[in-house]
Amino acid sequence: MRIALDALGGDHAPVETIAGAVLAVQRGFLTPAELVLVGDEPLLRQELAKNGASSEFEIVHAPENIGMDEHPAQALRRKRNSSIAVAAKMVRERQVDGVVSAGNTGAMVGAATLMIGLLPRVRRPGIAVTFGTAGGPCTLIDVGANIHCQPEDLFTYGEMASCYMAGVHRIEKPRVALLNIGEEEAKGIPLVKQTRDLFERSHLNFIGNVEGNDVFTGRADVIVCEGFVGNVVLKVAEGLGQFMVEQFSGAMMKHPEFSQSGPNDSPALWKQVAKAVMTKTDYAEYGGAPLLGVDGSVFISHGRSDRRAIANALKVAKQFMLADVNRHIVSGLSDAPSANAAGGES
Amino acid sequence: MRIALDALGGDHAPVETIAGAVLAVQRGFLTPAELVLVGDEPLLRQELAKNGASSEFEIVHAPENIGMDEHPAQALRRKRNSSIAVAAKMVRERQVDGVVSAGNTGAMVGAATLMIGLLPRVRRPGIAVTFGTAGGPCTLIDVGANIHCQPEDLFTYGEMASCYMAGVHRIEKPRVALLNIGEEEAKGIPLVKQTRDLFERSHLNFIGNVEGNDVFTGRADVIVCEGFVGNVVLKVAEGLGQFMVEQFSGAMMKHPEFSQSGPNDSPALWKQVAKAVMTKTDYAEYGGAPLLGVDGSVFISHGRSDRRAIANALKVAKQFMLADVNRHIVSGLSDAPSANAAGGES
Repeated sequence: MRIALDALGGDHAPVETIAGAVLAVQRGFLTPAELVLVGDEPLLRQELAKNGASSEFEIVHAPENIGMDEHPAQALRRKRNSSIAVAAKMVRERQVDGVVSAGNTGAMVGAATLMIGLLPRVRRPGIAVTFGTAGGPCTLIDVGANIHCQPEDLFTYGEMASCYMAGVHRIEKPRVALLNIGEEEAKGIPLVKQTRDLFERSHLNFIGNVEGNDVFTGRADVIVCEGFVGNVVLKVAEGLGQFMVEQFSGAMMKHPEFSQSGPNDSPALWKQVAKAVMTKTDYAEYGGAPLLGVDGSVFISHGRSDRRAIANALKVAKQFMLADVNRHIVSGLSDAPSANAAGGES
Repeated sequence: MRIALDALGGDHAPVETIAGAVLAVQRGFLTPAELVLVGDEPLLRQELAKNGASSEFEIVHAPENIGMDEHPAQALRRKRNSSIAVAAKMVRERQVDGVVSAGNTGAMVGAATLMIGLLPRVRRPGIAVTFGTAGGPCTLIDVGANIHCQPEDLFTYGEMASCYMAGVHRIEKPRVALLNIGEEEAKGIPLVKQTRDLFERSHLNFIGNVEGNDVFTGRADVIVCEGFVGNVVLKVAEGLGQFMVEQFSGAMMKHPEFSQSGPNDSPALWKQVAKAVMTKTDYAEYGGAPLLGVDGSVFISHGRSDRRAIANALKVAKQFMLADVNRHIVSGLSDAPSANAAGGES
């Protein structure tokens, strides 16, 4: 089991990516032999030295970097020696089993689709983000890999995420739901209604439509939506989560009993409380989101990832590989009602 | 200035709607003469009596109620004496200036569109919900009145919400943004790209695309999206807000110093803090969302509305009427580049 880390990807690369790799090893998430750092070699050696970890890690030289705002397809064509392209090539050639990247999401999705290739019967891969909820983890798919979906693609998302939740989160018969603007069957856009038909005729544990608030109630283990909506949900959750933590902290600071250092340890307590809540809601806890449907393990981390997020992404990527999620997806999809058979069932 | 209250609409009607009307008067938001209660007369009299306010209020008898889960168009056709239909008819006939309803949203939108009618040049009305953010109020439009939109409809939403923020929230030249999955012009679905063109050629203070997190940063005063996405955002925000408050409260309760009654007033303080934060994020504070584009003032409240939410909805509905937002919308829209001229400008 070996994972390539895109050491140049992300807002804080390579400082945080290299520190994250070192942290992952320190915490026992993986051994240095299970990791390959992909990026500009002199730069990475320098960062490793700063972390006192120079000789432990294998580095594959990839001098070019795809910027966070570059056009994905153009950048991939022009920068064949970019860390993303080189890492994707390594997955394709089975030099590694997967890749973790906090870089340009569109470029990573493009490289995965075009260079690594998709699993049989998968037309479009989907990014599956897991949220902490009142009732355990809930995975939302897709949060932005594709914005042009057919009902069959959404159906495949549900199947793949179901295998993911069963394999990695050990949930038996994951409850799969469709994100809609009302629970009634008649509501919603045509894409959602047609997808509902596919789910209802499948062997998945489909529980029907849910609304946006159910992303946090734990009513479903998997919630399926198309990438535009999913990406908006992800960003809204991020923005509101941050806003509420700021609001709570601001309100607490107005009370000296809670906020000032003093004979009692109140300020430390408030920080503990804030940390406990953020642990449940912070993206960095899960670290990375799998791009499901790729013939290899691709994990996408937040562009803002710090060392903790990178280390956690490496951890969940390893869990994903050990659980052999892709093999389960392949065998699950082969039993699925094909899209062409839709409507033809008696 | 007179407002009809749909006294049968909402999960907790008529108990909370009637109590909300009484509360609104007690708090001086409006006088009994400014209010008309629409619903089953004997039932409303009974509720008024419970609130010790029997004779003050005018009641218009509407014995039928449209349930929260009824199909809007069918229900409107069948129940011509429903509180929603009767209230809409009163607006159309100028017996009242507007209506507040916490009932079936689809039915209220349908009644507004078909029975009251739309303002000149408006093809589709949009529900405008205002969020408290780090930088002041931010209005998201549309959160679910329509799910089949053209670029011209989204553009009109932006114009109308701009007038609303100027009139009611006193914001000069409101910053209008388009909700997208990236800030770059090239990103997003065709609907969003085409709408962007219309905004860029307009006289609005258009600041470009924003992402989901910006709903809470205060970067924009108005954020435009189509109704499916907007409704999901609204529900996600509601679900996550509630989840985080529960998480914070749960974490606080684990610390006796904060949670137990004692010589210091810590528990009361935590409740104060929670209340202060929820005041900023709770839907009940704004109470109701205007359905912009209707030739009358229509306010839609959350189905779960309690008396405080109803009272606040009556308050903002009155502010809306006093600010004469619809007149501003009509004069604003007449200056707008027409949809047909799109692409024809040099």
